Amino acid sequence: MKILHTLPREDGFRMPAEFERHRGCFLIWPERADSWANGGYAARRAFTNVIKAIARSEKVIVLASFAQYENARVSLPPEVKVVEMSTDDAWARDITPTFVKNDKGELRGIDWGFNAWGGLYDGLYFPWDRDNKAAKKMCDLLDVDCYDQQSFILEGGSIHSDGEGTVMVTESCLLSGGRNPQMTKEEITRHLCDTLGAEKVLWLPYGIYLDETNEHVDNVCAFTAPGEVVLAWTDNESDPQYPMSKADLDYLQSVTDAKGRKLKVHLLPLPSPITVDEEDCDALDPMDGEPTRVPGDRLAASYVNFYISNGAVVMPAFGDPNDNKAAAILAGLFPTREIIQIPARDILIGGGNIHCITGQIPE
Amino acid sequence: MKILHTLPREDGFRMPAEFERHRGCFLIWPERADSWANGGYAARRAFTNVIKAIARSEKVIVLASFAQYENARVSLPPEVKVVEMSTDDAWARDITPTFVKNDKGELRGIDWGFNAWGGLYDGLYFPWDRDNKAAKKMCDLLDVDCYDQQSFILEGGSIHSDGEGTVMVTESCLLSGGRNPQMTKEEITRHLCDTLGAEKVLWLPYGIYLDETNEHVDNVCAFTAPGEVVLAWTDNESDPQYPMSKADLDYLQSVTDAKGRKLKVHLLPLPSPITVDEEDCDALDPMDGEPTRVPGDRLAASYVNFYISNGAVVMPAFGDPNDNKAAAILAGLFPTREIIQIPARDILIGGGNIHCITGQIPE
Repeated sequence: MKILHTLPREDGFRMPAEFERHRGCFLIWPERADSWANGGYAARRAFTNVIKAIARSEKVIVLASFAQYENARVSLPPEVKVVEMSTDDAWARDITPTFVKNDKGELRGIDWGFNAWGGLYDGLYFPWDRDNKAAKKMCDLLDVDCYDQQSFILEGGSIHSDGEGTVMVTESCLLSGGRNPQMTKEEITRHLCDTLGAEKVLWLPYGIYLDETNEHVDNVCAFTAPGEVVLAWTDNESDPQYPMSKADLDYLQSVTDAKGRKLKVHLLPLPSPITVDEEDCDALDPMDGEPTRVPGDRLAASYVNFYISNGAVVMPAFGDPNDNKAAAILAGLFPTREIIQIPARDILIGGGNIHCITGQIPE
Repeated sequence: MKILHTLPREDGFRMPAEFERHRGCFLIWPERADSWANGGYAARRAFTNVIKAIARSEKVIVLASFAQYENARVSLPPEVKVVEMSTDDAWARDITPTFVKNDKGELRGIDWGFNAWGGLYDGLYFPWDRDNKAAKKMCDLLDVDCYDQQSFILEGGSIHSDGEGTVMVTESCLLSGGRNPQMTKEEITRHLCDTLGAEKVLWLPYGIYLDETNEHVDNVCAFTAPGEVVLAWTDNESDPQYPMSKADLDYLQSVTDAKGRKLKVHLLPLPSPITVDEEDCDALDPMDGEPTRVPGDRLAASYVNFYISNGAVVMPAFGDPNDNKAAAILAGLFPTREIIQIPARDILIGGGNIHCITGQIPE
């Protein structure tokens, strides 16, 4: 693996959309007892369901700590590859390299700086050095060269690409004081274009209410095709989410993408608010560094947090009447893919969902 | 990766010879301060030379601990792959799965039990669980299925195969009380044939004097072609090695291989005895578990401990007049391969040599 110090765009590389064809997908085996209830037991069950669903149509590589390798190996089917790697938690989306491709089909990875969603400013755990070192190792595993972008703080969940020159982010995350506060919005825009091989960045104002990542775009809005997005939505005007989603909708309806297209916006209903109860909180081991949940805390549940595999859309289910409504909308938008709903409360409790725990490797 | 509970021979798999074509080679980045002088600094330099020599003609995968990944990555050329993996030391030969192939060219690995060369009976360190878990992970890395042979204790350095049905071992190692004392010599012979797909096991009586592995075969004798071996040799009849090598020579001249051939035995001179001095001993951190060296200890130096890569024979040099003699003999026996001599005292001090730190992956 070569470490590269040039910029992907000047080398002719661009970030594909998630709905383009994959070589495979990374996930990380959950273990951390302050993130995951009951020492991770229920989360490992839920992750296993996600892994099996994705493995039906693409290669899955699961990273596990030394302590958990055997558990992962016996829990997962043989077609899944398990690799020992040290990480700080299980959010593959945010620590997987962002893969970029050129016209010859060559693949490279981008190794961003990772500081646990805000570092000492408002990050979610300390230390985060194992997470921060993972992207380079993932490139090495795949024998792809790696762009060093350690000086720019970015998580995979905070960017979406349509594969045709348009990148989508949220202001609340990318302009947060815990990311790259020394850079202006214009400088960040230019840097995203240089690294992701894009021509235009769409800046949604907000993400999901109380999303601990400073409102990652991947929980609120996703490309389903070039020129088309789904947006997390509620009709309840008294919900604090309403003005946030409304501001995003207004923004999306006011802009064009890099190709000059108006965006088709599909509203994806949110589930009713999901909160943690005393039992949930009691099942977490408090540890230094990670904020402790208290009963009544609302979780950032959203159906937008789905993963597009080669053969399926793997989406969260919350036991909510809107589960089937959301699935029907996605079925309409992804007519060639199976819709697989995975009960996801045990993932949500950790602070994210199915998109957050996956990281696709383009073909 | 599938875990298999059948026997390789009944599945049509056999262990290729080292001189057959390789897909690549595993090494482990040295780190342990009771094995390697000055915290491993000099050993890492020597290993790097070995790695670069092998990487000239085949893919090298280097396993490094979390702590040493960056050091390995910047020290090694980009064509070498570095993978994080926990191990207890750096003897890849002894913990790499033994790879077996069938006639269709399919590859599988054998995961032997590993107990640090004798376990609590006369092993060299405790614990050894990280080493013992590595073979399975190495199979997973390569996407090859893995035979579970954890109940049989064996190290890769204690067996050699000619690829045509003959396996060579030493009695001093395989019949040692720290390996499989519950099995008779006949039972071990049968089990080696069943697992390595062989028809005959040649039992040399001895290895190299004071070899801490209970005298692994790979330090004293190696196949250079079917029906041909090199044997470590001294003409000095007062050297304690003399009767050991003489007994091996007598044995080799008295037997035939699986194909019924008499063996051609080439004598490879040993270097003059190499001992550790006070400076060597002072440079080791004493730690629980590993026997401490004392000044004057003789090391088990032998030119037989070479590695056959696709394009070269990578062999140790000791700064001894016999360095060139041994190289000339090997050059004659491997006319299509380059002979690369690597100064190896900094590897030898750890208790083994170039063959011990490598593990080939057949093509």
